[in-house]
Amino acid sequence: MKDDDPHKRLWFRDYISPGLTVSHSIRRVIYSGQSKFQSIEVIDTGSFGVCLVLDGKIQSSESDEFVYHEALVHPGMLTHPGPEKVFIAGGGEGATLREVLTHRSVKKVTMVDLDEEVVDVCRRFLPSFHQDSFADPRVELHFADARKHLEDSEDSFDVIVIDLPDPLDKGPARLLYTQEFYQTVKQRLEPDGIMSMQAEPATWNDLQNFTDIFSTLKTVFSIVRPYQTHIPSFLSLWGFICASESLDPANLAPEELNARISARVSRELKSYDGLTNEAMFAIPKHIRHQLEMAKKIVTDKEPLVAY
Amino acid sequence: MKDDDPHKRLWFRDYISPGLTVSHSIRRVIYSGQSKFQSIEVIDTGSFGVCLVLDGKIQSSESDEFVYHEALVHPGMLTHPGPEKVFIAGGGEGATLREVLTHRSVKKVTMVDLDEEVVDVCRRFLPSFHQDSFADPRVELHFADARKHLEDSEDSFDVIVIDLPDPLDKGPARLLYTQEFYQTVKQRLEPDGIMSMQAEPATWNDLQNFTDIFSTLKTVFSIVRPYQTHIPSFLSLWGFICASESLDPANLAPEELNARISARVSRELKSYDGLTNEAMFAIPKHIRHQLEMAKKIVTDKEPLVAY
Amino acid sequence: MKDDDPHKRLWFRDYISPGLTVSHSIRRVIYSGQSKFQSIEVIDTGSFGVCLVLDGKIQSSESDEFVYHEALVHPGMLTHPGPEKVFIAGGGEGATLREVLTHRSVKKVTMVDLDEEVVDVCRRFLPSFHQDSFADPRVELHFADARKHLEDSEDSFDVIVIDLPDPLDKGPARLLYTQEFYQTVKQRLEPDGIMSMQAEPATWNDLQNFTDIFSTLKTVFSIVRPYQTHIPSFLSLWGFICASESLDPANLAPEELNARISARVSRELKSYDGLTNEAMFAIPKHIRHQLEMAKKIVTDKEPLVAY
Amino acid sequence: MKDDDPHKRLWFRDYISPGLTVSHSIRRVIYSGQSKFQSIEVIDTGSFGVCLVLDGKIQSSESDEFVYHEALVHPGMLTHPGPEKVFIAGGGEGATLREVLTHRSVKKVTMVDLDEEVVDVCRRFLPSFHQDSFADPRVELHFADARKHLEDSEDSFDVIVIDLPDPLDKGPARLLYTQEFYQTVKQRLEPDGIMSMQAEPATWNDLQNFTDIFSTLKTVFSIVRPYQTHIPSFLSLWGFICASESLDPANLAPEELNARISARVSRELKSYDGLTNEAMFAIPKHIRHQLEMAKKIVTDKEPLVAY
Repeated sequence: MKDDDPHKRLWFRDYISPGLTVSHSIRRVIYSGQSKFQSIEVIDTGSFGVCLVLDGKIQSSESDEFVYHEALVHPGMLTHPGPEKVFIAGGGEGATLREVLTHRSVKKVTMVDLDEEVVDVCRRFLPSFHQDSFADPRVELHFADARKHLEDSEDSFDVIVIDLPDPLDKGPARLLYTQEFYQTVKQRLEPDGIMSMQAEPATWNDLQNFTDIFSTLKTVFSIVRPYQTHIPSFLSLWGFICASESLDPANLAPEELNARISARVSRELKSYDGLTNEAMFAIPKHIRHQLEMAKKIVTDKEPLVAY
Repeated sequence: MKDDDPHKRLWFRDYISPGLTVSHSIRRVIYSGQSKFQSIEVIDTGSFGVCLVLDGKIQSSESDEFVYHEALVHPGMLTHPGPEKVFIAGGGEGATLREVLTHRSVKKVTMVDLDEEVVDVCRRFLPSFHQDSFADPRVELHFADARKHLEDSEDSFDVIVIDLPDPLDKGPARLLYTQEFYQTVKQRLEPDGIMSMQAEPATWNDLQNFTDIFSTLKTVFSIVRPYQTHIPSFLSLWGFICASESLDPANLAPEELNARISARVSRELKSYDGLTNEAMFAIPKHIRHQLEMAKKIVTDKEPLVAY
Repeated sequence: MKDDDPHKRLWFRDYISPGLTVSHSIRRVIYSGQSKFQSIEVIDTGSFGVCLVLDGKIQSSESDEFVYHEALVHPGMLTHPGPEKVFIAGGGEGATLREVLTHRSVKKVTMVDLDEEVVDVCRRFLPSFHQDSFADPRVELHFADARKHLEDSEDSFDVIVIDLPDPLDKGPARLLYTQEFYQTVKQRLEPDGIMSMQAEPATWNDLQNFTDIFSTLKTVFSIVRPYQTHIPSFLSLWGFICASESLDPANLAPEELNARISARVSRELKSYDGLTNEAMFAIPKHIRHQLEMAKKIVTDKEPLVAY
Repeated sequence: MKDDDPHKRLWFRDYISPGLTVSHSIRRVIYSGQSKFQSIEVIDTGSFGVCLVLDGKIQSSESDEFVYHEALVHPGMLTHPGPEKVFIAGGGEGATLREVLTHRSVKKVTMVDLDEEVVDVCRRFLPSFHQDSFADPRVELHFADARKHLEDSEDSFDVIVIDLPDPLDKGPARLLYTQEFYQTVKQRLEPDGIMSMQAEPATWNDLQNFTDIFSTLKTVFSIVRPYQTHIPSFLSLWGFICASESLDPANLAPEELNARISARVSRELKSYDGLTNEAMFAIPKHIRHQLEMAKKIVTDKEPLVAY
């Protein structure tokens, strides 16, 4: 297919809500398979380039994964005074790992992803995402349920980064969005540790999961800071949350943040800096209001469900 | 059609780019017609409620038009110390007018929209958008080309708000995105006046028109401030720009802005306040960089073209 | 919308099967409403012109309704030696009625359609379909359930034409595709009477309902003759069946049929003649084989369900 | 993807006309590539199983290719008294070859397909289509332009079967639908030879190419017989034509044809027999009328163009 062909043949359909679907033209299906846990596709789209798709949902695209992964990793990492031990739950593409490893202070990263097949596919087909991060000697990679792993572990971490797929009904990530899981996360954090997570869409017409995660985290952590940025390939604002007993990313002045980036991060960041951080944590009034009103507590008994 | 019917029958297809289309289910086609200038549809969608669609592009939706119209109107209006004479180019829904009229200082609003039929359709079918603003005695409504009207006028204005459809190829708005038009706008502003405008998508993968408008405005005005907010029904960040010879909306502290809102705006705003303003003007680094690099000057000879 | 615009905005989506959907561009939504029994739409499509859509299914299109209605009506009517009393079940567009009334022998047509609103909409918006047939003095029109009407009636008919929508799950036509209903039909036919019906898709990959109706009718009538023709707007071959105790439409030679048409039908037919009849009753081997194998009996307890 | 998942992710979109598109869900993309001449895809669809797609058009599907290939091959072959030398133009799947080889009289088949890559892909991924026919010692396979091959050849054939893709604008098959090409075909036929070809859609709303090919062939051959059958995966009736100087397939009685099949074809046919043949050649009146009216002569200077 030529890129200017008005008649694209293969399309990826992303079901945003019952009344809203997004169709991406496909230049090439690079990989298509089914693991023990989920369906896996790597497609080259006309809209956003190469994308990883799990269970029918775009996880990240080569055109804007830097926005997502920088937003997920750096606010928490830079709020911490000098993270050495980092835990990553999920993050199969290896791009979260890549961002964590840019921090000079990091000595060890424990990454636990459920699905070895996803990681294998990403290592083979998404080299620009992981940039050989899996080969870094600081990395310890496990294929297991991240919740189980943390429950069984006695390690503690400076930063825990949670980078999981949507909590699809019957999907593998459902029980990693609950109060019980967040309590486990808190137990595995150092006293001055901090966690950061992707927290589902933060778009005005699709806020429910974001606000539910926020109100649930508030029952576990003293400091809970929601933030958001726009991920074009998700076609929406995306929510993130940092939570901690002692560290507050919202209090960092842009200049201080820029200074920390210079001192502690080993490469130029493309999207994240002091001003970007200011934009991310300044939630617009109408969304802020919904966060303030949120009351639901997500538990193992009543987990979240993404569409 | 029941809302939970998985088999929606009527769909509105929004062509975002050659490789990306968005389909909105339609509950009801409220109006469908063709004016002298453009096609007009009012549809009730499953995704965003009632939408105005001109030439196949969603102009605004009942679910989030407040975000768009508050963002378009208030930064400019509140930066000005006390706007009395306001000009609106376009704005057929009447919602830009509605926001302007909430400012107690306003004595006269001149609104010029090309298409009487659009305004008629909006008055009949979008009452929640205009909220009877057309009946306000301060309003003077003309059906004409806004550029021609300003060129022929000798009036001057405190604030000019430009709320036009996309510059579609052969569409009616193409020559209202050019250097020549912005020079006319400047001539019709009071010395301490300010203009604000919708400035096309400000999404990472679709920035060209936004940056082109920005670099063009910089050749005309001393102070040019781009800002952005997320409009869910547009499925993207949306760009806006304020331009002035003397007033700078980026310099307003959140507290000062909140105080001005309390003092000067006659009703509670839903989306816009000091913190929202901070988020809007804090452009993320990767987009900021593209704005800094922008050089193109859009002229009558080489106008913009939206997809 | 111009017809050559590659970016059609409004689309009608026809769900043929879970893995197959057909999208028709819409030039205009002429009518959209919901009756007591079903949703009703009249749309002008880019593909097939004006279409009647009930519960999301195209019932007929102006471009090819003549193929459907001539196929439904004339084989039965012309097999009968001289039909005077005709009953139509359904047929809201009035086009089945139009075809029946072309037969000079007809003295009275009793048409029973469930939904007065459908008939009203068709009378207003589909004049080329009914061609004022409702005003013919030979017509008696009832708004009622056709099965109930026949059960309660003591009249007998020379020809009964059954022109009902698909047996959708919970749809109004479900109990008019059962053995019990066909027994009632038989009771209301004169001894030398004949019934004809639309009998759902007759396409190789979608034959189930056609063969189920066929095997059910064989338990009720001595002579049961399936036939088919291609209806472009249905995107498939369509099945029809004639059933009788004494009359066999498959035995008519093309020349005899052409002679009957000349003698008995008051206007030139566009699609149906002797050779067309030969094509319709000559079922291809692979479909014929499925009809021969069919065994299911559809009853009130276990009715058909169309997708 | 499970087959019952209402949210299929990958779709193949077939553009039937500007206002009509058909979407097939994809279970798996088996092969996707680009040859020197055209794009090639092998996809497993939810609607019709495994399909070969060239330049975005479905060529054949495993669910109904037998209908197409039996219709293309057997009427011509069985009209001939005992074909020994057969030429196939195109037919990359090997299924036309498979049908030709079932005729016991055949001593040599010369197959000329332009695109070696298509044939390679079909040999690897479509075993049920070719059923190892390429390995039959009677087959001589060339990769070349079939027209050039016939022009340069001095061989003569009993039957020539033309099985080419649509004459797409700038596509490789455009000059194999012209008067000049058919003259070459005629020169390469034995005096009592016959040719048969796929002749594009024969659907009421899409007849132009079928009737143009028909009227063009009539300028070259004495006997030209159009026929048609329904191919579900093409979502339309499909046209075929036999042409000869002496042989007339329309004159064969069903019983005679069934006798010839028994005597001369080495395996049970699934779709084609005497009655199927009767159905195929009995063109309905409205389409027959368009064929009778057809006048256009397609030449190298003004070739056909399929949408």
